[in-house]
Amino acid sequence: MDRREFNRAMLAAAGGYVIAPQQAASNLKVNGQRIVEHLTGLSQFGKNPQGGVSRVAFSEADRQGRDYVMGLMRAAALEVSVDAAGNLVGRRKGSSSTLKPLVMGSHIDSVPEGGNYDGDVGSLSAIEVAQTLSEKKLTTRHPLEVIIFADEEGGTIGSHALSGEITEKQLGLVSSSGKTIRDGIKFIGGDPDKLATIRRGRGDIHAYLELHIEQGGILDNEKINIGVVEGIVGITQWEVKIEGFANHAGTTPMNQRRDAMLAAARFIEAVNRIVTSVPGRQVGTVGKLQAWPGAYNVIPGKVIVGLELRDLDSAKIQMLYQKIRDEVAQIAKLTGTSFDFTETNSIVPAPTDERIRKVIDETARSLDLSTKWLPSGAGHDAQEIARLCPVGMIFVPSVAGISHSPKEYSRPEDIANGANVLLHTLLKLDSLTFN
Amino acid sequence: MDRREFNRAMLAAAGGYVIAPQQAASNLKVNGQRIVEHLTGLSQFGKNPQGGVSRVAFSEADRQGRDYVMGLMRAAALEVSVDAAGNLVGRRKGSSSTLKPLVMGSHIDSVPEGGNYDGDVGSLSAIEVAQTLSEKKLTTRHPLEVIIFADEEGGTIGSHALSGEITEKQLGLVSSSGKTIRDGIKFIGGDPDKLATIRRGRGDIHAYLELHIEQGGILDNEKINIGVVEGIVGITQWEVKIEGFANHAGTTPMNQRRDAMLAAARFIEAVNRIVTSVPGRQVGTVGKLQAWPGAYNVIPGKVIVGLELRDLDSAKIQMLYQKIRDEVAQIAKLTGTSFDFTETNSIVPAPTDERIRKVIDETARSLDLSTKWLPSGAGHDAQEIARLCPVGMIFVPSVAGISHSPKEYSRPEDIANGANVLLHTLLKLDSLTFN
Repeated sequence: MDRREFNRAMLAAAGGYVIAPQQAASNLKVNGQRIVEHLTGLSQFGKNPQGGVSRVAFSEADRQGRDYVMGLMRAAALEVSVDAAGNLVGRRKGSSSTLKPLVMGSHIDSVPEGGNYDGDVGSLSAIEVAQTLSEKKLTTRHPLEVIIFADEEGGTIGSHALSGEITEKQLGLVSSSGKTIRDGIKFIGGDPDKLATIRRGRGDIHAYLELHIEQGGILDNEKINIGVVEGIVGITQWEVKIEGFANHAGTTPMNQRRDAMLAAARFIEAVNRIVTSVPGRQVGTVGKLQAWPGAYNVIPGKVIVGLELRDLDSAKIQMLYQKIRDEVAQIAKLTGTSFDFTETNSIVPAPTDERIRKVIDETARSLDLSTKWLPSGAGHDAQEIARLCPVGMIFVPSVAGISHSPKEYSRPEDIANGANVLLHTLLKLDSLTFN
Repeated sequence: MDRREFNRAMLAAAGGYVIAPQQAASNLKVNGQRIVEHLTGLSQFGKNPQGGVSRVAFSEADRQGRDYVMGLMRAAALEVSVDAAGNLVGRRKGSSSTLKPLVMGSHIDSVPEGGNYDGDVGSLSAIEVAQTLSEKKLTTRHPLEVIIFADEEGGTIGSHALSGEITEKQLGLVSSSGKTIRDGIKFIGGDPDKLATIRRGRGDIHAYLELHIEQGGILDNEKINIGVVEGIVGITQWEVKIEGFANHAGTTPMNQRRDAMLAAARFIEAVNRIVTSVPGRQVGTVGKLQAWPGAYNVIPGKVIVGLELRDLDSAKIQMLYQKIRDEVAQIAKLTGTSFDFTETNSIVPAPTDERIRKVIDETARSLDLSTKWLPSGAGHDAQEIARLCPVGMIFVPSVAGISHSPKEYSRPEDIANGANVLLHTLLKLDSLTFN
């Protein structure tokens, strides 16, 4: 008997069944109602009177939410442990002890005054997939891991600990909870001094899947069931300092001004115009602005704005940036100001695995669900894990595209669809070999 | 003998001379060097290491500066008192006891991190004029008053106390010194409970003259010696609240945004364009802006900006405002935002007296000085006193138009020119009758 047959026999003896994917696809379904119940259960931790939750990483609400989720993981017959970064890791044996694990994951921490879907939907659906497999007594070839990553919203800390090094500087940063990341990791049961022990190497994971709400309005707008994520966009941020000359707003004629606010206004308009002047799904945002001295009656002499560009293609980000710089030279000249750009943050694009995209797409269509390929404009744990193995991401619609808000909402049927695509994609990946 | 002859005779007997203006004009001059020495003396109080002064009203530096100035007033043979508002009033008898006083004034308090010319030049020049008259033993028909007004920079408090009511609410406001206006007035020797006793009625003052630095760059740019001020512009300020919808900067496509920052940028650009689209010396400024939530990665859902319009003509301010509102309707529509305007401050224009303007102009020309008529874009004590009597204002050039800054500077010769115009204008007004 070959290895597969051997494994089947072993598992049958242990009371489980090795699945036949083509058979499973036709009738195997998650319990969508149970996901919604668990979402409601989780929403109690950090609940805000005005709606939504503030369950920021390392807060008491986060710790309580994690306890609740560990209970769900155990109920799904997962063997649960907390790793050195504070990630919750739920393991389920596969039929082969030599194969690398198949990993599903997401997070349950929220932004301050966040909603009940970002992270939670993917986390609870991954657990639901494990529970469905357990209830149906189905065993995958690969071992399974469900990982609820620590502190995603504060900088994908938990997933980064698996794929890279959390520096001393990062550990010293103060998180939204008020604790440093170091103290926060300890607070949730991790050990910041042993982070090196949990790092995984390239090839240590068979594949990684993450279900997430879209957080944008594309699927909802176009009434699409499932988003096949092409990758997580790259992000570059610049602090832009604009200097003119502060002067009396009453006594300085219009033609003698060097108005940093007017220059900033033209800059913001130019960013919008340039970013929308070429086809594609790139975005450009000026989200912050400070003006000095900042009084009704003083022409601002200094303005600092934050510029952010995102796209799946780093070259496009550079091209847009160059166009902006070219136009800025004109604005500076016309307004008598100077512009100074400092890159403050840069995250490279993390494309998903092309083969997994196709599996997700085919799986969804086999379940009679419509699909659309799109980038993820938001960051996710998947971008960290993409450094280790092939990753796939599945999006479900966010009503009106609202996210990071108490108004964030995804419909139960959309969540169940996503979880079913997650389940069947997982099963197909179980029989694929990546090289 | 007529009244004038009688007065001359009386004064000659008392050791003074009643002046003959036509005679005085040819050779009477202030001591320009002394004004500069006094400016240097005054600059010690509240001196900043990086240059300029912080001599905000009611501070210890203000009190010390006032003591110094009182000394100068006494040296100029003025009879000095501190009134209930804390104004320093220096009196000099005229040849007629029945005539109303001729008043010269300005202030010596500064903005935080201000310069050594705004207010100081007019104050020390008025004292210099008195000292020159004293040294030359010249007596005017009208009694003279030199008033150093308290807390000009904090809202023309001292001059307002002469022409109107300082409300309980105003007295309770915290000034830049950290003290309430009430406590500040006490601190400099006034009595906030007796403000009613110093109010003057319409007609109680013969005329008011104020010399001031331009605070703008018009005279310096055009190499003009003397500015004949047409009036102090009206100022209207609005708080403009722009509401869009805060959303994730990565996941919200460009065409689905309701970006309050972009709307604000277009607003700022429109204000500049509209204000400069019609002839005249009106100014429009957006000097402050706050964006919420104010992060690189969130499209701002709310922006509040401060709009200020100034002109000598209230109707023009209204016309510009209406044009701005019309364009705002378009911006709101195109960006999916709403604009809400709240008027937060409105100061009506205060024209100077037309006859006094002509006297200033003729006086300057008779001294071989070039003149230009222009509005004052900044507020001054003169605008308060304009409610009581005919007022005139004389501007001297500010190098590069810099003001409210340690870099503020006016040349000694320009200051001396201004003080000589002040002196001779005063003498001419002494012989004029206003009705």
